[in-house]
Amino acid sequence: MPRGMDMSKLDDGTREMRDLEVVAANGLLHRRALLIRGLAFAGAAVGLDLASRRATAEPLVDAQWSLANGDPPPPYQLPSKFAANIVRTNANPDNLPKVTQTRTPLHLLDGQITPNGLHFAIIHAGVPAIDPAAHKLLIHGLVKRPLLFTFDDLLRYPRVSRITFIECGGNSAPLFSPTPMQATIQALHGLVSCAEWTGIPLSILLDEVGVDPRAKWFVAEGADAPHLNRSVPLAKAFDDALIAIYQNGEPLMPGNGFPMRLVVPGYEGNMNIKFLRRIELTEEPAMSYYESQVYTTPLPNGNVYRFFFVSEVKSFITWPSYGFSLKGPGLYEISGLAYSGEGRISRVMVSADGGKTWGQAALQEPVLSKAFTRFRMPWKWNGGPAVLQSRAYDQFGSAQPTRAQFVAARGEYASTPVITAFQNHHFNAVMSWAVTASGEVTHVYA
Amino acid sequence: MPRGMDMSKLDDGTREMRDLEVVAANGLLHRRALLIRGLAFAGAAVGLDLASRRATAEPLVDAQWSLANGDPPPPYQLPSKFAANIVRTNANPDNLPKVTQTRTPLHLLDGQITPNGLHFAIIHAGVPAIDPAAHKLLIHGLVKRPLLFTFDDLLRYPRVSRITFIECGGNSAPLFSPTPMQATIQALHGLVSCAEWTGIPLSILLDEVGVDPRAKWFVAEGADAPHLNRSVPLAKAFDDALIAIYQNGEPLMPGNGFPMRLVVPGYEGNMNIKFLRRIELTEEPAMSYYESQVYTTPLPNGNVYRFFFVSEVKSFITWPSYGFSLKGPGLYEISGLAYSGEGRISRVMVSADGGKTWGQAALQEPVLSKAFTRFRMPWKWNGGPAVLQSRAYDQFGSAQPTRAQFVAARGEYASTPVITAFQNHHFNAVMSWAVTASGEVTHVYA
Repeated sequence: MPRGMDMSKLDDGTREMRDLEVVAANGLLHRRALLIRGLAFAGAAVGLDLASRRATAEPLVDAQWSLANGDPPPPYQLPSKFAANIVRTNANPDNLPKVTQTRTPLHLLDGQITPNGLHFAIIHAGVPAIDPAAHKLLIHGLVKRPLLFTFDDLLRYPRVSRITFIECGGNSAPLFSPTPMQATIQALHGLVSCAEWTGIPLSILLDEVGVDPRAKWFVAEGADAPHLNRSVPLAKAFDDALIAIYQNGEPLMPGNGFPMRLVVPGYEGNMNIKFLRRIELTEEPAMSYYESQVYTTPLPNGNVYRFFFVSEVKSFITWPSYGFSLKGPGLYEISGLAYSGEGRISRVMVSADGGKTWGQAALQEPVLSKAFTRFRMPWKWNGGPAVLQSRAYDQFGSAQPTRAQFVAARGEYASTPVITAFQNHHFNAVMSWAVTASGEVTHVYA
Repeated sequence: MPRGMDMSKLDDGTREMRDLEVVAANGLLHRRALLIRGLAFAGAAVGLDLASRRATAEPLVDAQWSLANGDPPPPYQLPSKFAANIVRTNANPDNLPKVTQTRTPLHLLDGQITPNGLHFAIIHAGVPAIDPAAHKLLIHGLVKRPLLFTFDDLLRYPRVSRITFIECGGNSAPLFSPTPMQATIQALHGLVSCAEWTGIPLSILLDEVGVDPRAKWFVAEGADAPHLNRSVPLAKAFDDALIAIYQNGEPLMPGNGFPMRLVVPGYEGNMNIKFLRRIELTEEPAMSYYESQVYTTPLPNGNVYRFFFVSEVKSFITWPSYGFSLKGPGLYEISGLAYSGEGRISRVMVSADGGKTWGQAALQEPVLSKAFTRFRMPWKWNGGPAVLQSRAYDQFGSAQPTRAQFVAARGEYASTPVITAFQNHHFNAVMSWAVTASGEVTHVYA
């Protein structure tokens, strides 16, 4: 028997239903009900009519795919035709010369990693086809010796990997609407994804150019037609910024910055400059379009958010969510994503009664700083109305705000269409799904 | 300044070259040289002629992709045409009715995760196009109530995620050859990949059917034409086996088992039954073709390996490796993969002198049980000949065997072509890359 296998976990299979302790109103169960062996033999606990699933004779029949050879495996494999609905949406299908949002179908995914084919992208002038052999990275400005690196040069430097989310600052903008928009998680929250990024710590390259002590910022610029640029505090370069050249193991996807991008973990997506070609060290920020216009946000109290970069602690339930329905009373697993641009998620609380009572969700390991954390919560739905919420906390004790707290501080957006509004950024409040007695799921403000 | 940012890491950029302590012969440096700020300003430490990279005027020119709109972002994005060489190889390009190996280009990847497009696959009768709506999973045999689950039924059960490698038992078979095969990492070791698998703990479904106390094994069977089946000790079901339905977040790739597969972390790939349609609980193993014929291995001492499932502790250097060359003396990062089917990697030692002296490599976090662990080692190549090796250790203290130890216990393969040999399984010995004075890399036995 291999080491590490615990034979004590193997028993005679006659355990009783157990560990289904209710921890909050409306059927939320203790998270240990999800542990292996925790759900325990329970007949129809999950609400299936197991009697109808009873197999008394050989019930398997050979379908076509069980009788004949299939297709050859392709050099680069793609999803099944039966998963053809699991794709990114595109807000600019005619490829007009404007910003294009492609959103990740988070309601159809599970786990922590976003696969490369489905990573969200905001594209400002189409996806450039950059030849890495002709692409260069310039580091200059307040440095001792400005340097121009080829792609091959960069491959000589040490690398690190980091599983981290990237979130558009405008993600969840529809939640600023004064009435709840009825739309999928993909439409509401689909501008965030999580991948393993591998590349060169920016600090190493700054050591090569030699930082002038006057430098306090760096301005990063892309090689695509808009030459999008953003200013980043220099301290971030010496914290955890990297020049990423691999995404989930392979070279970056073209829409995610091939051949190289800046990754500033936890900072708004727009700052993670794709197609990176320039880093200029400066005393002051550039006051570029995206920092002075788009991501400078007026607040209800008359102040203005400026240079507010971090995606604060946030969570949302991906299942059940709009577009799904529950198939009758029984045991369900509520599942969702939590993340914080500050660090690790410490806990996620779930409510089934609109925030009156809360139970603690299970967090899927590994729980990593500035990465997606999948949470799961067992729920025994009694068939009555329920309002589901999740509320995340990070390692520094920061709590996701309630919607009321958030609106008091940040305001709502009164015009339509909210989805194109510039000033609605960094939404991170608790959101709510109502489940009706018929099992339908709608978006509500509770 | 956001919390978590350490301003003390920001200094005046005039640090001296430091931390380049030699820890083993032939230029291996202490792993802290790879830490952020550790490489330190060093002029041409990495062997680049930085003077030639000096940028005195505005050196960036706008290429075509900097002047015009690009293509629209596709619903499911694919790699750049400039990365078209990063694909799986196919040992059966004419799709003849036989086993097909597709190998992952590990020498062209970095990080821990294998992207779904490039995950290896062994296909026994082509890739079946299975409709999940028509696919069922039967659990029967020594159970209290045999049950037939639809795909939708299974979606009702709680899920877990696990980042784990899957390795073909025949991976690295060319290393059994008495002379070293000159081939890439993809050809030598490309039948292993690492992904995040999400699905239902098998233990939960066994609770539903109720295990008969006489059951000691389960036999898993696939729905593709060969109905490949394997026997697994029942204890594994109550340890960490799962029915996976997501791979790196999205539904399984067709070649990796869509719509569902068994995942038995750390056990040889062939046991991770794809297109899973049956689990039969039994008193004895089925003695199926793959367990009684293919994966029963005679040993030099006259004994036979039978039911030896675990991929033991293993590592190999992916860079530099065959097919790459070094561009002159200077600092390089040696990079590779380590993993153990028993648990976590505890350390990886690297040698540049064929195993006489060793230095400890840096391990990329997160270091997870039964998952790829990326190791990195700084190396100042003096331009002379070198023999690079890596040797991994796991949390239980198991060490990767030397080639001499391995051959003494397991033998070599005397015939050709070794790559098709059945009996050469579970190779996990230390391997060696020789670097010549001209920078070429060849496979040697040292």
